[in-house]
Amino acid sequence: MSKGNKTRAAILDHAGELATAVGLEGVTIGRLADDLSLSKSGLFAHFRSKEELQMQTIEHQRERFVNAVVRPVLSTPGGEARVRALFEQWMTWRKMNPGGCFFTAASFELDDRPGRPRDRLAQLQGEWLQSIAKVAESAVKRGEFRADTDPAQWASECYGIMLSYHLAEQLLKDSGAEARARRSFEDLVTRSRP
Amino acid sequence: MSKGNKTRAAILDHAGELATAVGLEGVTIGRLADDLSLSKSGLFAHFRSKEELQMQTIEHQRERFVNAVVRPVLSTPGGEARVRALFEQWMTWRKMNPGGCFFTAASFELDDRPGRPRDRLAQLQGEWLQSIAKVAESAVKRGEFRADTDPAQWASECYGIMLSYHLAEQLLKDSGAEARARRSFEDLVTRSRP
Repeated sequence: MSKGNKTRAAILDHAGELATAVGLEGVTIGRLADDLSLSKSGLFAHFRSKEELQMQTIEHQRERFVNAVVRPVLSTPGGEARVRALFEQWMTWRKMNPGGCFFTAASFELDDRPGRPRDRLAQLQGEWLQSIAKVAESAVKRGEFRADTDPAQWASECYGIMLSYHLAEQLLKDSGAEARARRSFEDLVTRSRP
Repeated sequence: MSKGNKTRAAILDHAGELATAVGLEGVTIGRLADDLSLSKSGLFAHFRSKEELQMQTIEHQRERFVNAVVRPVLSTPGGEARVRALFEQWMTWRKMNPGGCFFTAASFELDDRPGRPRDRLAQLQGEWLQSIAKVAESAVKRGEFRADTDPAQWASECYGIMLSYHLAEQLLKDSGAEARARRSFEDLVTRSRP
């Protein structure tokens, strides 16, 4: 990575953390300049607008998620093994982000705020749900999950387990949250088997 | 209700809607004064600080939730009937709030922002999860749910269904979201039976 790219990545890393703490709406050029002791005009020259800064923050988090979750999952064999890899990498992602998951926070923040950031986030969340559904489908194709498994339904339930876990751990600081999420996931896998 | 109380309720109704749209952090005395064409000094005299305004916004939403969900649920007989009432009233609450559920949005917003609003919200969410667990327990006691049902686990899964539904409907505008949530809930009830 060039020095410019490293600086850009460091700025966007901080923007992502800031977004989970104060909301994507709080990620502004002025706030980043203050936090990172950078010149506001330099940041402005680079990002041009608050919206563009928010868009690049989303893309940067997307790259992090693809590297931490999507790639490792796709490198495992299909079927139940991949279903399990998906859950484990998602848990790892959760732990890589002690302030909370950027996408979860931003989804509930932006859901009724029209604009490009919302549209892009909805697109990415839709794609992620489809990816989960495809992974479940790969287990159906191998006969490891029942033939009547509805992949979209499966993805929605799997996502629900993660959201409930996020809330219990992040807001409630519930020490039993992870064990409960793991048990829910095991139950989901068990009842999906033929 | 006295005129003063009506005005206060109208202000806090708007504060709640604003919170789901721009975040609780965006609920400020200045913004409310602008939106409602009220004097800033009048609002300040009443709410004293942004934190106090946020606290009262939370309490006002709590009252709305108790009236819309908790009271009707507690007026039904215990057991599976009450479990079903809980889900139906929760869905009704969801529809009463087309901009999204205040508590869901605020939970993911405040989860890593220390302070009185976060503490109060965590307390209310913890109490709500306990209430769901108790309702499941009432079905266990009547022999309508299996004796080995773990009420906290049940509550966590039920909450996950609602969170996944909220995300699919509010962010993704997925027209199949409600049917999927209802199916997940029916599956949860069915597999809880002896």
